[in-house]
Amino acid sequence: MRGAILHAPRDVRVEQREDPKIERPTDAVIRLAATCVCGSDLWPYRGIEPVDGPAPMGHEYVGIVEETGRDVRTIEPGQFVIGSFFASDNTCEICRAGYQSSCLHRQSVGALGTQAELARIPLADGTLVATPEVPSDALVPSLLAASDVLGTGWFGAVAADVQPGKTIAVVGDGAVGLLAAMAARQLGAERIIAMSRHESRQKLALEFGATDIVTERGDEGVTAIKELTGGLGAHSVIEAVGTQESMMQAIRSARPGGHVGYVGVAHDVELSGQELFFSHVHLHGGPAPVRRFLPELIDLIWNRQIDPGQVFDLTLPLDQAAEGYRAMDERRAIKTLLRP
Amino acid sequence: MRGAILHAPRDVRVEQREDPKIERPTDAVIRLAATCVCGSDLWPYRGIEPVDGPAPMGHEYVGIVEETGRDVRTIEPGQFVIGSFFASDNTCEICRAGYQSSCLHRQSVGALGTQAELARIPLADGTLVATPEVPSDALVPSLLAASDVLGTGWFGAVAADVQPGKTIAVVGDGAVGLLAAMAARQLGAERIIAMSRHESRQKLALEFGATDIVTERGDEGVTAIKELTGGLGAHSVIEAVGTQESMMQAIRSARPGGHVGYVGVAHDVELSGQELFFSHVHLHGGPAPVRRFLPELIDLIWNRQIDPGQVFDLTLPLDQAAEGYRAMDERRAIKTLLRP
Repeated sequence: MRGAILHAPRDVRVEQREDPKIERPTDAVIRLAATCVCGSDLWPYRGIEPVDGPAPMGHEYVGIVEETGRDVRTIEPGQFVIGSFFASDNTCEICRAGYQSSCLHRQSVGALGTQAELARIPLADGTLVATPEVPSDALVPSLLAASDVLGTGWFGAVAADVQPGKTIAVVGDGAVGLLAAMAARQLGAERIIAMSRHESRQKLALEFGATDIVTERGDEGVTAIKELTGGLGAHSVIEAVGTQESMMQAIRSARPGGHVGYVGVAHDVELSGQELFFSHVHLHGGPAPVRRFLPELIDLIWNRQIDPGQVFDLTLPLDQAAEGYRAMDERRAIKTLLRP
Repeated sequence: MRGAILHAPRDVRVEQREDPKIERPTDAVIRLAATCVCGSDLWPYRGIEPVDGPAPMGHEYVGIVEETGRDVRTIEPGQFVIGSFFASDNTCEICRAGYQSSCLHRQSVGALGTQAELARIPLADGTLVATPEVPSDALVPSLLAASDVLGTGWFGAVAADVQPGKTIAVVGDGAVGLLAAMAARQLGAERIIAMSRHESRQKLALEFGATDIVTERGDEGVTAIKELTGGLGAHSVIEAVGTQESMMQAIRSARPGGHVGYVGVAHDVELSGQELFFSHVHLHGGPAPVRRFLPELIDLIWNRQIDPGQVFDLTLPLDQAAEGYRAMDERRAIKTLLRP
């Protein structure tokens, strides 16, 4: 099969890879209907995270089950399925508490690489959720969004304790930040302030449910949020970047007793214990347990209540993955969908 | 009047100070029935926090109202009252959300100094809570504990989301940590693991409701907690120290999706964003909004359901405040009560 391999920073190639096979009785092999490039793929692409030899890339996926191991009970060949970036058994105590991305038996799907024609998905029963039937092509981008960016934005909103009637700020206007605004809207937030300085992203944020746009960043961004909230700060702030500046912007934009949900993978972030102590915020986040939300998200998409697939503003054949990465790196595209 | 003044590290003297007066119409002046030395007083005493000139000391207090300003409505002379270390209006949006220690109009009582015969308490209506009647002497230590250490331990337990049936770990065996164990018991925790290596404190922890003692610290302490919790970590961890080691011990002792409530005033603590991200814990804490809990705590004490005054294992006349500080500094005493 064909699959994307990162050889070195900015060197992504689509090459011949060995077809994945069932290795354990709990595996499934799926034929990808669509896959995509994640903001977090840009960290190794940019050389900010080390590239570990030639590495298969991609951890977002939807597709048709080709084959299942002999212990797989709930998934069968021919079904259209969605999973997330950590395979999970969905039965351990941590999974049952809703933290499937910290499952005691979790396995990284990213290490297997789903920017490819086929992918082996471990722990298929616990990881994959089937749609009611094979979807029309029009629904595929939104279902693919549920695999990571929508699920991650949703977790950010839940971790930030978004509630009806509350004021929310979103730091980050990548696909996750934009879909966090959508999640906040679905969860009943009254006011949703998107922090973005890019016109096309502002437009999408407003379409997804944002009510206000703040273009300032850092301390000026914090001042702008305070001005919009009677000097108090937002009830809930969703952080979807992962840098020192964005984390501090999020923490300082929340009112005392408020909540910060952070889903940007933290890179070189150090938090001052003293500032955090006196901020009085609640802090929660981490790798999103997307599996917790998948049934609900699939329902919302299936019933046309949300259309998160709009974050894909570039669609390319898998063979042009390199251009897909470049477009996102240069911020010409919000998110690239790849068709194997 | 007489009052304690910190002149320099380890130099506390009880001296003549000017009698406090009503300065604003919302003030009250109280005559202290008892006051005490706080673990946080030891930071400047030890020179770890800078000493700002000769500084009046103390922020814990119970006593009889002597006089009230003309705008005070709910408190009157002759009442026995308890308040906390931040005066708060208890009416602003932050107070109404339960974060009185971040009140928009908060004032530090510590700056006024309650290790004295008299104290001016600002924002008396929002700050002070009266007992049903003037208590017997036997109840005074427990009511004094509610002013800070019990209220702070209680907030730690609430911030750590202590729930019936859950397993709790407490990092820190000072008065706050010990009373956090009491709070966890009252809030229905099933298992309460106190981390302490001092026999007298272990004994008190068990009396207050701890079910297990762990004597190891740091990474060994974390391993011990994991062993007691099937490898998962505690559901809730209460941090009551405020050092780098204690914070990391708390975060690493919690399971993914678990909660850390931190009430030790953070000193030189830096948290790695990446470790926090992958820990999946909820983090909440800060200066305890003791005012939120005072009515409930006073009830529990008044009805003899809890006896937090046991943390005072040394009682001295105010004039011997210096010895009270020394005994705590040298860990000969858990907490010193001072009788003006």
